[in-house]
Amino acid sequence: MIENPYYSPEVHGPYEMFDLGDFTLEEGYTLRSCQLAYATFGELSPAKDNAVLVTTWYSGTHQIFADVYIGPEHALDPEKYFIVVVNQIGNGLSTSPHNTDDAFSKAKFPHVRIGDDVRAQEQLLRERFGIEELQLVVGGSMGAQQTYEWAVRFPEKVKRAAAIAGTAKNTPHDFLYTETLIEAITSDPEFLDGWYECSSDVRAGLDRHARIWSVMGFSTEFWKQEQWRPLGFASEADFQIGFMEAYFRVMDPNDLLCMAWKWQRGDVSRHTGGDLAAALGRIQARMFVMPISEDMFFPVRDCAAEQKLIPGSELRVVDSIAGHLGLFGLEPDYMPQIDQHLGELLEQPA
Amino acid sequence: MIENPYYSPEVHGPYEMFDLGDFTLEEGYTLRSCQLAYATFGELSPAKDNAVLVTTWYSGTHQIFADVYIGPEHALDPEKYFIVVVNQIGNGLSTSPHNTDDAFSKAKFPHVRIGDDVRAQEQLLRERFGIEELQLVVGGSMGAQQTYEWAVRFPEKVKRAAAIAGTAKNTPHDFLYTETLIEAITSDPEFLDGWYECSSDVRAGLDRHARIWSVMGFSTEFWKQEQWRPLGFASEADFQIGFMEAYFRVMDPNDLLCMAWKWQRGDVSRHTGGDLAAALGRIQARMFVMPISEDMFFPVRDCAAEQKLIPGSELRVVDSIAGHLGLFGLEPDYMPQIDQHLGELLEQPA
Repeated sequence: MIENPYYSPEVHGPYEMFDLGDFTLEEGYTLRSCQLAYATFGELSPAKDNAVLVTTWYSGTHQIFADVYIGPEHALDPEKYFIVVVNQIGNGLSTSPHNTDDAFSKAKFPHVRIGDDVRAQEQLLRERFGIEELQLVVGGSMGAQQTYEWAVRFPEKVKRAAAIAGTAKNTPHDFLYTETLIEAITSDPEFLDGWYECSSDVRAGLDRHARIWSVMGFSTEFWKQEQWRPLGFASEADFQIGFMEAYFRVMDPNDLLCMAWKWQRGDVSRHTGGDLAAALGRIQARMFVMPISEDMFFPVRDCAAEQKLIPGSELRVVDSIAGHLGLFGLEPDYMPQIDQHLGELLEQPA
Repeated sequence: MIENPYYSPEVHGPYEMFDLGDFTLEEGYTLRSCQLAYATFGELSPAKDNAVLVTTWYSGTHQIFADVYIGPEHALDPEKYFIVVVNQIGNGLSTSPHNTDDAFSKAKFPHVRIGDDVRAQEQLLRERFGIEELQLVVGGSMGAQQTYEWAVRFPEKVKRAAAIAGTAKNTPHDFLYTETLIEAITSDPEFLDGWYECSSDVRAGLDRHARIWSVMGFSTEFWKQEQWRPLGFASEADFQIGFMEAYFRVMDPNDLLCMAWKWQRGDVSRHTGGDLAAALGRIQARMFVMPISEDMFFPVRDCAAEQKLIPGSELRVVDSIAGHLGLFGLEPDYMPQIDQHLGELLEQPA
């Protein structure tokens, strides 16, 4: 157990915990009293027919959704929907390497898969709220991986699905990219094979990890157009330190590595013996596949190829010079596009 | 001075040395008896009107050109042209950190700029061969940076120029990408601030550097289509170790860092107070700008924007799924495209 003040309601806003009990992972380990941190917005209707699930991305929590995506001015409107944002296992708020104090703490935290998160989320929604049907599952990046997993694993429960900037089956290139992120952390001598005493001991590794994110997380054009200027930074270096490095430096390295391993292996075709078309063919949800135009590692091409395999789906490309990290809602024209697409999707019969 | 058997004619094929004398760099240091390693192909005509200069890229030497680009079956035909391939300063064959044994050895090797290489090459061609006019200057990647520098610095000497997969002014994104390569090496504890005893002591850093190259050097589609299979590899890991890591592991870390610093700062607008249009407007050569279609860090968009600023130039996009490292000629349809474009360029009056 590491005390890390970043993982607190003071930083991320209020959330609640759900105890899954002893939760057995696909890889064959049991997390005792596994906890999911979640936040809700709006009221569940008596008929329980207005539930929306939002899943989280690598390093993200419910906070970004509360701050950017959810509100009466957005498609994710808490006046109409009961919106549940569930923090993924390993993200630091739910059960994670840094906050586990039993045999599985720190470097011994077991490997978690996207499917584990989705089973855990389904249990939370059913046991705590009696929700058996979701009007929409939506998430970005690793949240899109969870969205695909939901739509394939529980096709009868998902009425609509929106996968933003992510894939159903991770690509080889994306795996290699994530490997460089992992190595940036694990190669820091202060990482001590995961047995560091304090998250910030691995500062050099976390900073290198952040700088690799700068290369792939933003587009070539973002940097060329100096799109960090409208975000209030005075120089590239100012943005690198003040935004990218500052964002990651407070996090726990083992938590990031838990998510990175999971991200690398997101693959709904595990349900169908490796047949991606068969897996995506199971989807009953009305689905929008929403890649970001300038994404360097979930490129439109990869997402469009998957979309073609999903019955009744649509490709809705989100224009963003920022690229993948446009997900943060950095550009003024980003959320209007998201709201337009999600609004249309929510209006469609399912 | 480090003994590194990779930097030898046994590995790279025969080459000759030219002594520049005391060569003063733009950054204000003097390399004493600075050596350029070069290889020639074909015969210089009595009128000295058939000379072609080929410049080298990051980590590259004259060897790749001898093996892949030059021959009677190619546009770079030694039966017609006198082709001089000059190894850039810092590449391990020319004067470089690892082979300097004076005050400037290893970590103390001074910063070298693209302009230094081009001045050195001009001196070599003039003093050794009496060449005052080049029918063509051609290079890829950092070789393209040198090509642009030639065309802007010595406009009257360059009849034709072809810049493959590189830019006249390096982009901010490319700078950041190169920074991650540098950090992969310098963060290795065995790097010892550049004072390692043996190049291979920095093996872990060189391997991480190679794996970052895998992410940006090849395209997302190269990995997805498993284009390493036709190259004779059995798996991604086989290719990573047997190709990418093997390629870089034999090299000297300080040599790579010398080239990386230079690469980051390639910028012909240094001649015109930062005015890129004015610098490119100086070019008198017939010029083909030849980006590679799937290049992740010298994207077509950036190259095309520069091409528009060059009078009488043409944009000739080279299709390659491999991406930037398509430069190695990995694909059967790569060299035919290069030969087609260079052949047409060489036939144009200039």
